[in-house]
Amino acid sequence: MPRSLTDWLFGTPLASQDEEDQKVGVFAGIPMLGLDALSSAAYGPESALTILLPLGMMGLNYIGPISAVILALLLVLYFSYRQTISAYPGGGGSYTVASENLGPKFGLLAGAALLLDYVLNVAVGIAAGVGALVSAVPALHPHILGVCLLILGLVAFVNLRGTRESGLAFAIPTYLFTVTLLVVLVIGIWKTILSHGHPIPVTPFPTPSLSPSAATVGMWILLRAFASGCTAMTGVEAVSNGVSAFTAPAVRNAQKTLGAIVAILGVLLAGIAYVAHAYGIMATDPDSPSYQSILSMLISAVCGRGIFYYITIGGVLSVLCLSANTSFADFPRLCRLIARDDYLPHAFENRGRRLVYTLGISILTLFSALLLIVFGGITDRLIPLFAIGAFLAFTLSQAGMVIHWKRNGEGRHRGHMFINGLGAIATAVALVIILVAKFAEGAWITTLIVPAFVLVFLKVRTHYGYVANETKCARPLDLSAMHEPIVVVPVKCWDTTTEKGLRFALQMSSQVHAVHIGTDAEITANLRTNWDTYVRGPLKADGRNDIPLEVVESPYRRLFNPFINYISVLKRNNPDQPIAVIVPELIETHWYQYPLHNQRAAWLKAALLLHGDRRVVVISVPWYVSPDTGTSGK
Amino acid sequence: MPRSLTDWLFGTPLASQDEEDQKVGVFAGIPMLGLDALSSAAYGPESALTILLPLGMMGLNYIGPISAVILALLLVLYFSYRQTISAYPGGGGSYTVASENLGPKFGLLAGAALLLDYVLNVAVGIAAGVGALVSAVPALHPHILGVCLLILGLVAFVNLRGTRESGLAFAIPTYLFTVTLLVVLVIGIWKTILSHGHPIPVTPFPTPSLSPSAATVGMWILLRAFASGCTAMTGVEAVSNGVSAFTAPAVRNAQKTLGAIVAILGVLLAGIAYVAHAYGIMATDPDSPSYQSILSMLISAVCGRGIFYYITIGGVLSVLCLSANTSFADFPRLCRLIARDDYLPHAFENRGRRLVYTLGISILTLFSALLLIVFGGITDRLIPLFAIGAFLAFTLSQAGMVIHWKRNGEGRHRGHMFINGLGAIATAVALVIILVAKFAEGAWITTLIVPAFVLVFLKVRTHYGYVANETKCARPLDLSAMHEPIVVVPVKCWDTTTEKGLRFALQMSSQVHAVHIGTDAEITANLRTNWDTYVRGPLKADGRNDIPLEVVESPYRRLFNPFINYISVLKRNNPDQPIAVIVPELIETHWYQYPLHNQRAAWLKAALLLHGDRRVVVISVPWYVSPDTGTSGK
Repeated sequence: MPRSLTDWLFGTPLASQDEEDQKVGVFAGIPMLGLDALSSAAYGPESALTILLPLGMMGLNYIGPISAVILALLLVLYFSYRQTISAYPGGGGSYTVASENLGPKFGLLAGAALLLDYVLNVAVGIAAGVGALVSAVPALHPHILGVCLLILGLVAFVNLRGTRESGLAFAIPTYLFTVTLLVVLVIGIWKTILSHGHPIPVTPFPTPSLSPSAATVGMWILLRAFASGCTAMTGVEAVSNGVSAFTAPAVRNAQKTLGAIVAILGVLLAGIAYVAHAYGIMATDPDSPSYQSILSMLISAVCGRGIFYYITIGGVLSVLCLSANTSFADFPRLCRLIARDDYLPHAFENRGRRLVYTLGISILTLFSALLLIVFGGITDRLIPLFAIGAFLAFTLSQAGMVIHWKRNGEGRHRGHMFINGLGAIATAVALVIILVAKFAEGAWITTLIVPAFVLVFLKVRTHYGYVANETKCARPLDLSAMHEPIVVVPVKCWDTTTEKGLRFALQMSSQVHAVHIGTDAEITANLRTNWDTYVRGPLKADGRNDIPLEVVESPYRRLFNPFINYISVLKRNNPDQPIAVIVPELIETHWYQYPLHNQRAAWLKAALLLHGDRRVVVISVPWYVSPDTGTSGK
Repeated sequence: MPRSLTDWLFGTPLASQDEEDQKVGVFAGIPMLGLDALSSAAYGPESALTILLPLGMMGLNYIGPISAVILALLLVLYFSYRQTISAYPGGGGSYTVASENLGPKFGLLAGAALLLDYVLNVAVGIAAGVGALVSAVPALHPHILGVCLLILGLVAFVNLRGTRESGLAFAIPTYLFTVTLLVVLVIGIWKTILSHGHPIPVTPFPTPSLSPSAATVGMWILLRAFASGCTAMTGVEAVSNGVSAFTAPAVRNAQKTLGAIVAILGVLLAGIAYVAHAYGIMATDPDSPSYQSILSMLISAVCGRGIFYYITIGGVLSVLCLSANTSFADFPRLCRLIARDDYLPHAFENRGRRLVYTLGISILTLFSALLLIVFGGITDRLIPLFAIGAFLAFTLSQAGMVIHWKRNGEGRHRGHMFINGLGAIATAVALVIILVAKFAEGAWITTLIVPAFVLVFLKVRTHYGYVANETKCARPLDLSAMHEPIVVVPVKCWDTTTEKGLRFALQMSSQVHAVHIGTDAEITANLRTNWDTYVRGPLKADGRNDIPLEVVESPYRRLFNPFINYISVLKRNNPDQPIAVIVPELIETHWYQYPLHNQRAAWLKAALLLHGDRRVVVISVPWYVSPDTGTSGK
């Protein structure tokens, strides 16, 4: 039955209060809110090492110091967001914090940055996941983009259906990823110590054949490597936005979760840097068929290409895809917040049905697909655009917190102010470095997109204000010049849908016109005969006004224009009366039958509304096609 | 203004008779109807040579005999289609010829085969064009799929806008392609003769490093190479379908055009085979970064990589993209033919506006994009699916012609029958060879898709028959049980759209209900006050029935379900009266403003029609937002 279409495609509706049903503790909170941050370990170090590639083996010596700076920045972020959590227990996303404390424009800036960040997170997550897959199954190398789009389609479909994530679906891959990677790192460190710093890889990995003198070590290349490595920090802000999801004491639990996530991420980043350096693992060119991701080389060097290798790579792949999945929850949610403030179409706002998320999900899918296609599904090419959105949001959020403490504390919160201020400055410096270092490689795109988003937000708000002003009605109902409407029934042939339309027309008015657009002389002649016997006869017998069949000839087989012209003439001749056009519609039993009918009805309605004026009203009279043969539906 | 949206996006409408405006002669007919066939020379020989690759240099010796068989088949097709042209001067597409002579089922089979063929023609044309591009600009090699999708998007956009092809746009690339390639071939043959059969390439080309003993020459590999080479014949049928486009004498001109096309194609195929053999040019692996197309290697071997090379490759690229473009004209046209016989949704049939082609174009784009993504944009992987559709259509069309001569001639047309019969048998044999040789590589997909299409056609026809039967009305208009409708006005707040809806409701009936879905206590209280002063007051003063504001509480902020429930109760309490629901709609000045409003109205209408029954009618009352500030629109 029709109802089942939406349910089948998109799942049963969710009541608003359902969201509150599942409260989580620290153990379940880590995968739920930390997945995005933890998965960054899979591409952050790799993108830094790719930049260092021209330095040859010498470049590996710099991964240590660069990682140290990134870890220090991560620590500052931890303390800074700890405070956001306690200050905004109801959820302190960057949009909210920046809007409330820095003003709506800064809020919109943060919102635009985050929306872009979510789109990139989908693209980068999937591209990096496919990178891991291709490392394990080199035969897939020619199909990178195809596999990326396939996974994107799958994730989008799952989200359109609505995932009622059991937590378990997130927990298993996250902990699998964390534990297997930690095991690899521990074994790697152990082997390094045993071999006095010179471990022998179990499985050899490809080494790029570059002369070490290919490039000189400059500040520039180190800054660019740092900028790329900063992508490892994306996703850390998620906990601050989800405090309300924790069991009491929510703030304590959220802070513990944040601490755990940052600690695990830190250990992973440090461990990867150390072991990669010890084994001498360098990045490989993603375009070459011998491409392997850093993690793939690292795991096979430490543990060989056995079953454990495939389990670990499986963990990496699933965590990266799920991390893309988190954007599918966050993107529509942020759109809804922004729409509630009139900066995005209200269609984003309605939360009555799962279905309304469709819009956000579709837009996110479209943009991510575009990014993947433009950049060929290669993580490395997407990285320059990434991190900018995240760091802009970090900075605005921390800066907003500084103002928050200043306003609410009267000097009592100097310590808090200092920590958030430090966070704001540190992320702002990182943001500038990323922007400068990556500008030519793609960051310039970001500097166009984010302001463009903000502009759209402001335009939308202006338009809503304008329409609200124009439809404002501070006067009583106008009951002057009330006239019976003229009803027009377009007639294609004499069938039950026409009969029903005519009946409804007669029930609402005594002034009914029947119009036929004549494209075929034979059909028209036939209809005239039918009309006289089946319509005019009974009307006369019932003592009602006659309804002659008015035929508008259309030699070029056009349907809409002659009809629109007919309506125009009718309006001109009846300047005071409202005009109602009856459009019969067939409603099918099965959704897949819909394309078989109604196209003409839909076009006619659209044409009438576009060419009409306020006096023309469109009436859809449905006719239900019954599912079984024989009897007609009620 | 609203009208301009569709015009701007899709061009101004075309009158039906415009199609007849442009009649062409032979010179203009060759590019118009021969583009598809001629461009096949760019991928046919290449795909045969790719199959021969494992044989090493020895494989080159077989390209001659294989080409000879293909040329013979081409000659048979020429004589066969010459007759179709004279027998069906009004246009003898395979669908028409097979339907009329073999019966509708065979017609549908031919139609399904052709539709698939058009989709593949788009994919193969673009993939081969990008193959040429990548040969000239190897830096694009990692982006093959991206470039393919980009070109597809472009071609689709141009077609959605509607191309009023001036002929010139087709003629220049076609003749550029033909002439430059012929020049290359003549120089190549000349150099071969001068060097006694051992010309030295100007620019060396990559030679695959295969041991010549890698494979033995078997019948199997030769059959597979022949099957791949047969793709060079696709598109030859186009002239027979476009006879009506020629100036008088149409049949003579069409036959001359077909002759010219077949002659040029034959010369190109023979020339490519001869020169490639003389220079020892073999196919290269499309997955390897050193990939070059056969034509690219051939041109650079004969003439070097100078400006002439780039002009010739430019001709190849544009002809292949335009050949994809021809499918965009043929696919919707065939869909319309099939829809006219009730086998496809009628939406395909309407030719009133350019816009209706949108459906066919969108579907074609979607399917081609899918094919390109699944097969990674590599011509060689798409080839096994190609040609089957074309050869199935060839066979059915020729077989249909045999019946045609038998029926109409009473023995006078034995000669005609023989030629078409020979054509049918030759193409049938080729079809079987292609099917068997390519089955495992992808032809099996075709054997599923074509019958699936036919099944869909038959299902659609059955459904139309069923609906026509159910809506049949061979009785007079029923005027019993006529009741005034109950009109329901959903109220969000008191504004001009509500006022207008209420006015229309009062004009059509005296029984009006106003319903508010209460999601926010404050808003509801506010509305109640406004309602009493602005609505109930004036109604009382005018002596009309009171319309109290009925509030349905919705604690979970749902809008549709409570409203649908309200309507259900109303229906139950008033079993005889029709119920009309007024849905106010904002019509925007600019199309891009549409997404800002009306989402709720659209959902409400859909929900009402899906959950309603024949008694519930939906009335769209438009409110036009005026383009300028200050005054409100009329």
